[in-house]
Amino acid sequence: MPVFHVHVPAGRFFPAQKRAIADALNQSLVDSLGIPAEDRFIMITEHGEAELHLHPTFMGMNRDPENAMLIDVLVGAHRPLEDKHAVVAAVNKMVVDAVDVSPDDVFIVLTPVPIENFSFGRGVLHMAESGPRW
Amino acid sequence: MPVFHVHVPAGRFFPAQKRAIADALNQSLVDSLGIPAEDRFIMITEHGEAELHLHPTFMGMNRDPENAMLIDVLVGAHRPLEDKHAVVAAVNKMVVDAVDVSPDDVFIVLTPVPIENFSFGRGVLHMAESGPRW
Amino acid sequence: MPVFHVHVPAGRFFPAQKRAIADALNQSLVDSLGIPAEDRFIMITEHGEAELHLHPTFMGMNRDPENAMLIDVLVGAHRPLEDKHAVVAAVNKMVVDAVDVSPDDVFIVLTPVPIENFSFGRGVLHMAESGPRW
Repeated sequence: MPVFHVHVPAGRFFPAQKRAIADALNQSLVDSLGIPAEDRFIMITEHGEAELHLHPTFMGMNRDPENAMLIDVLVGAHRPLEDKHAVVAAVNKMVVDAVDVSPDDVFIVLTPVPIENFSFGRGVLHMAESGPRW
Repeated sequence: MPVFHVHVPAGRFFPAQKRAIADALNQSLVDSLGIPAEDRFIMITEHGEAELHLHPTFMGMNRDPENAMLIDVLVGAHRPLEDKHAVVAAVNKMVVDAVDVSPDDVFIVLTPVPIENFSFGRGVLHMAESGPRW
Repeated sequence: MPVFHVHVPAGRFFPAQKRAIADALNQSLVDSLGIPAEDRFIMITEHGEAELHLHPTFMGMNRDPENAMLIDVLVGAHRPLEDKHAVVAAVNKMVVDAVDVSPDDVFIVLTPVPIENFSFGRGVLHMAESGPRW
């Protein structure tokens, strides 16, 4: 965690490009938050015709409907604003570099989740007692 | 933002109907919260056989498994209860009108997200300093 | 509610197995939280090649990329830690038993949502006034 869910237009990215997006997201956490590289949990969903609506110009952006994506990030609720600034800046830059879209094409939402709410497997809440490690 | 993620049965809605759902969701925000019409960010996901389970009668509803949908809304955490009432009422009514399903068929969850957590593009948290505008 | 969103590798589970996952999730709530069996709201999404990245060993797990899944649970924000422990333990055990994956293969995130934010249909927030019933 953070856990990413990326929503992209169907057919836009080949598997190699999806891997590049995943690599970019993973590296953005390492660089911006010092998170271990093995903390890599990423989902990508394609949306077909009329299933992905990201307004082309709202908030002064110039989004390309062929490229625009939305990235939902389940992020530790303990993160201060400076961490959030660092994450979205890193995510945007690295995804843009990875698959050659415009910085305007990458919409990001950080959904806060208390870290005690994450179970990495075995039905255990791994950070329920320890508090944030990263 | 709010950002919508709509989960529908696969093959139930044609692209024109998906556009009608998106239009309805967009208009519901304009009408209920006074949000600009350009603030339009909507994702639709289809779920195939055995992938969408919405109980037919729980909480006194009469849901049609062929039509029932779940709409997850990432909504500003600052919204008071009266705004939430207004949003779910408007969303339900307009989606029902748009694609001719029953009011019982539209399940809505409002997931709160602090507005400082939204990046509309360029790796910037556009409302980190300004506070809510809408 | 809780509402489940399960992310699985595409083609790994047949419809009967997806139903078994849904049954397991439903029963896990009944057993761990005393929730009515009719409170059954579950979505499953398949992810194709290069669309699901769940690290094979992070946090000491031994995940099988062919089997590993991520379960996002929209859970009442009022739940104390003991309820969270009970839910993730029950979800893990019952999914593992249902489809014969390893306990290490089931990643769970509990995303908190105030119960006043749920509309089961008709544009009404059913628990806005009553408070938690379960």
